Amino acid sequence: ALLSSATPAQTSKDASSLRKTALITAVKTPYLPNGKFDLVAYDALLEAQISNGVGGVIVGGTTGEGHLMSWDEHIMLIAHTIHSFGDRLLVIGNTGSNSTSEALHATEQGFAIGMHAALQINPYYGKTSHAGLRAHFAAALAEGPAIVYNVPGRTGQDIPDDVVADLAAHPNFLGMKECTGNKRIAAYTSRGVNCWSGNDDEAHDARHGAGAAGVISVTSNLVPGLFNTLMNGPANPELAASLDELIKWLFCEPNPIALNTALMMCGLAQPVFRLPYVPLSRAQRERGAALLRPLQQHIPGCREVRVMEDSEFKLVGRY
Amino acid sequence: ALLSSATPAQTSKDASSLRKTALITAVKTPYLPNGKFDLVAYDALLEAQISNGVGGVIVGGTTGEGHLMSWDEHIMLIAHTIHSFGDRLLVIGNTGSNSTSEALHATEQGFAIGMHAALQINPYYGKTSHAGLRAHFAAALAEGPAIVYNVPGRTGQDIPDDVVADLAAHPNFLGMKECTGNKRIAAYTSRGVNCWSGNDDEAHDARHGAGAAGVISVTSNLVPGLFNTLMNGPANPELAASLDELIKWLFCEPNPIALNTALMMCGLAQPVFRLPYVPLSRAQRERGAALLRPLQQHIPGCREVRVMEDSEFKLVGRY
Amino acid sequence: ALLSSATPAQTSKDASSLRKTALITAVKTPYLPNGKFDLVAYDALLEAQISNGVGGVIVGGTTGEGHLMSWDEHIMLIAHTIHSFGDRLLVIGNTGSNSTSEALHATEQGFAIGMHAALQINPYYGKTSHAGLRAHFAAALAEGPAIVYNVPGRTGQDIPDDVVADLAAHPNFLGMKECTGNKRIAAYTSRGVNCWSGNDDEAHDARHGAGAAGVISVTSNLVPGLFNTLMNGPANPELAASLDELIKWLFCEPNPIALNTALMMCGLAQPVFRLPYVPLSRAQRERGAALLRPLQQHIPGCREVRVMEDSEFKLVGRY
Amino acid sequence: ALLSSATPAQTSKDASSLRKTALITAVKTPYLPNGKFDLVAYDALLEAQISNGVGGVIVGGTTGEGHLMSWDEHIMLIAHTIHSFGDRLLVIGNTGSNSTSEALHATEQGFAIGMHAALQINPYYGKTSHAGLRAHFAAALAEGPAIVYNVPGRTGQDIPDDVVADLAAHPNFLGMKECTGNKRIAAYTSRGVNCWSGNDDEAHDARHGAGAAGVISVTSNLVPGLFNTLMNGPANPELAASLDELIKWLFCEPNPIALNTALMMCGLAQPVFRLPYVPLSRAQRERGAALLRPLQQHIPGCREVRVMEDSEFKLVGRY
Repeated sequence: ALLSSATPAQTSKDASSLRKTALITAVKTPYLPNGKFDLVAYDALLEAQISNGVGGVIVGGTTGEGHLMSWDEHIMLIAHTIHSFGDRLLVIGNTGSNSTSEALHATEQGFAIGMHAALQINPYYGKTSHAGLRAHFAAALAEGPAIVYNVPGRTGQDIPDDVVADLAAHPNFLGMKECTGNKRIAAYTSRGVNCWSGNDDEAHDARHGAGAAGVISVTSNLVPGLFNTLMNGPANPELAASLDELIKWLFCEPNPIALNTALMMCGLAQPVFRLPYVPLSRAQRERGAALLRPLQQHIPGCREVRVMEDSEFKLVGRY
Repeated sequence: ALLSSATPAQTSKDASSLRKTALITAVKTPYLPNGKFDLVAYDALLEAQISNGVGGVIVGGTTGEGHLMSWDEHIMLIAHTIHSFGDRLLVIGNTGSNSTSEALHATEQGFAIGMHAALQINPYYGKTSHAGLRAHFAAALAEGPAIVYNVPGRTGQDIPDDVVADLAAHPNFLGMKECTGNKRIAAYTSRGVNCWSGNDDEAHDARHGAGAAGVISVTSNLVPGLFNTLMNGPANPELAASLDELIKWLFCEPNPIALNTALMMCGLAQPVFRLPYVPLSRAQRERGAALLRPLQQHIPGCREVRVMEDSEFKLVGRY
Repeated sequence: ALLSSATPAQTSKDASSLRKTALITAVKTPYLPNGKFDLVAYDALLEAQISNGVGGVIVGGTTGEGHLMSWDEHIMLIAHTIHSFGDRLLVIGNTGSNSTSEALHATEQGFAIGMHAALQINPYYGKTSHAGLRAHFAAALAEGPAIVYNVPGRTGQDIPDDVVADLAAHPNFLGMKECTGNKRIAAYTSRGVNCWSGNDDEAHDARHGAGAAGVISVTSNLVPGLFNTLMNGPANPELAASLDELIKWLFCEPNPIALNTALMMCGLAQPVFRLPYVPLSRAQRERGAALLRPLQQHIPGCREVRVMEDSEFKLVGRY
Repeated sequence: ALLSSATPAQTSKDASSLRKTALITAVKTPYLPNGKFDLVAYDALLEAQISNGVGGVIVGGTTGEGHLMSWDEHIMLIAHTIHSFGDRLLVIGNTGSNSTSEALHATEQGFAIGMHAALQINPYYGKTSHAGLRAHFAAALAEGPAIVYNVPGRTGQDIPDDVVADLAAHPNFLGMKECTGNKRIAAYTSRGVNCWSGNDDEAHDARHGAGAAGVISVTSNLVPGLFNTLMNGPANPELAASLDELIKWLFCEPNPIALNTALMMCGLAQPVFRLPYVPLSRAQRERGAALLRPLQQHIPGCREVRVMEDSEFKLVGRY
């Protein structure tokens, strides 16, 4: 807002199309051995997402490890994504922060460079009062269209229903990314509050039972086409059930540890971790390979699923 | 470590004196109306801490709102504190982060400018596996002496006992700042793991019953002398009980909201909040004033406790 | 290069079209009263440039005050320009620096977000040996297509002919922005080294006599159509001569002081200066108004040329 | 000033002692092979400076390559120097910049962490009007005691006499570091304007003939004791003459190229250059070794002067 930039209405995507996007991927950020972004691998992931029906991406979300980026890296990645793919899918920058000042600065920059919407989190770790939540989100939503993200298992603080009700009245509110379950999503949607499920294991039921617009997904990094079927096709509980074990495995450690490991075993990302993330154990990797192999034809670009050795992974502490 | 700087052993404070410091204050950071640091007010707070028996401070902790600082502000504040007060009390920089890269950079800089120890948090919000916790802390502890901070209510992830046991074997481990209660502290101290309580309401019992070295306190910003008596004097359950209501009020909203409000009502900090923090409500402020007034002679520099009006507070979203 | 991004060949503009662009404007950066970018005013300037025949812009050049921007502001402005105008004109980011490290980081980011070419300066102020110049430019040119900028009156060090001859052999070399005069430009172009004049008062002769591809202009911020005629039309010494007094005035103080003042007096930018720039004196402003008024119909968007008062200007030291 | 910090008068050094310090070294910054600071080597250089009579240092000057540092590195190095050596010599931070905003931010931080004085440059490269020079220095001097640095061969713009006369009236003005020769210095000192010579080859005559307070020296990195004799002893033109050839060699390429090479050949710094600096050529190194060997006993810590091979030097472009 301070930059007095183009208003969000001047973007090519209108808010109603944003609100209806059923499949949004929280896209993984791949790295080079020096710890910098591997944009070649990133671009390949994005192409695969688009050609398999994904409608939008979160750039630098928790899955994309935005919390391990400097802001200048983060904004650059959003600008790169807009420049290369912005005419073909929705680009949602995770420009939220537990610091209101950082959230405003990043969100303002994100809209100035053309992102279609922001993902706004409540102040994790620092937390605040309900009055503070309202003040934080009021400032952030004033910058442009936003999805509000509730994930108390990470933030240490739930965004309560009455705060959500107030946020939902803001013209820039696009909906909740809600991780506390379908019962709450159903309650929200029954009151007209747009929602995406933040839990892949509940996404099918959220979409086909609880009134959710769709999902913001981790699993769709791997099997975008199957999630497209789940979200944009009719109810298909058999397909959903068939993915249960994979999804369980993808969350056997805090995300994106398993997703990272999986993409590396599939040859889709170089085996590089930014600390504090490290690969799954050998046993977990074997279990993952067994789950991934039957789905290999649904993993775009995957020519082989290989159980990697510890020595193949590079952990980067400074980048 | 990359800077190849003076080793921590060259600091004037040895680790054993650090380990025994009973009263450490997580000091508040006061602001000017433009949102920048008010170093005049800060220096007055530090002088009051020193002259009332406080042995150390955490600079830019959660109470000091390190998560709302840019790193260059944060390192500058640590350097300022070392320069002005480092010969009179222990200066512990909160140079931890949920990003290992940021933690290493900040911790390295902190030791290069003379801080006596670091406070290291586990990766909040992003979280990681137990193997990731070990890797994160191994890298951070290699930089110099550190207190490890466990506060699952903020981080969304407990540091488990077996990880703590391993960390405690590191020569740079000074102890835990533990917020999960005195039962756990007692279990740790019985096994030789040094601890500070992170809960003011349990600090007396932690120190005099559970074997804790002392407390890392919020309340001691206000009543340092009383907390000095509690921590460095003999067991005094009456004194502890007399502070119960005040402590309960100080945590009626996520810290440091009430502490900030209290220091402003006492005239010790300008009425400026960095968002997402906002003042307590009028009713909460009245309740606080009623609790603070009887203690006024124990609040250094406080000439009056005044219930302030909403219009007197300035909220700063960009700074 | 470290980012392993899309190669510059993947951009929509090929190097040969870049080399032939006759009129490139070193575009002014307008500010809001708080010292941040005024993107609404900026976008209007860019639209006027495009509709009056300008083929490219330097973003954050010396005229655009790149040296008064933080890198995150600077990269954001390049990304914004690419996003909003990149399909209609060449966007050249001034991602050079006297620090090789900063130049590489910024240039790499600039290409990742889609800029068409970089402007690379030799290390001003710090200076270096000829071997150092070669090393600096070799690293910078490896990142992507670049114009090399020689302006010894600012840098304190001329880029010598033999260094230029070597740089000209690099496939990413697009040409020199040369400020030392047409005799040197003629010598370069006779040897096949592409050049733009960096001096508006010599631009016509550079283009029509000395073999230059065109000009990188300051004056074209004000009168883009006239400079389009000068550069893309046939030789027109009368038109060139008619602009002599205006150009002399535009450089009566170090650029962009007069340009800034002129755009403000024309109502095209808010009267805000980032220090160390300050407005021209009252007498200089009067002289400028007298020169600008006869050209008013050639200044896009200018409805009035007004001699402003000292009190109308805002000087911003912190932003 | 915005930080509302301790006033400079509260520092341990008063302005009159600063003004009389005859020998100030623009100290070299040594690097590790990864391009980060080598603080162990730095501390050894500082110890040698102190024990050989040097009274002050410029941290991160042009010699110390402040223009190749990020601000957080730069401020950290000033803080480190203050912390480790601030009670034994004057620490002058080169917190000037061609961006007024950066100069104010860095200078404010420098004083907050205890530096004794700042070095303030006029806006190089960007340049400005005389009115702009006054505005820039007025803002910078308001932050605390400063030496003003005039080096038109680097900045592209001389600070004119009438501007200097005005600056000299400011209570925080400590003197000029003047590089335009002893005639000008004599003219300044005759009018009561304190000066240091910025040219080692003229330093003796500046001090003993032109009324200068002393020198801000490059050569004293190598032979601090000899420069102490030159500056703090009686006139000694024979000693001065004996150093002529060495000084000429030290400036055979833009400083600090030769100084860096010399310290590496003396074993006092690791052979690491931050680009755009590169080592002297083999022939220049041989010439330097021949000049350094006879002075070896005056070079603290030097056990051997060795002509190094090209392959021994590491050039770092990203750090």
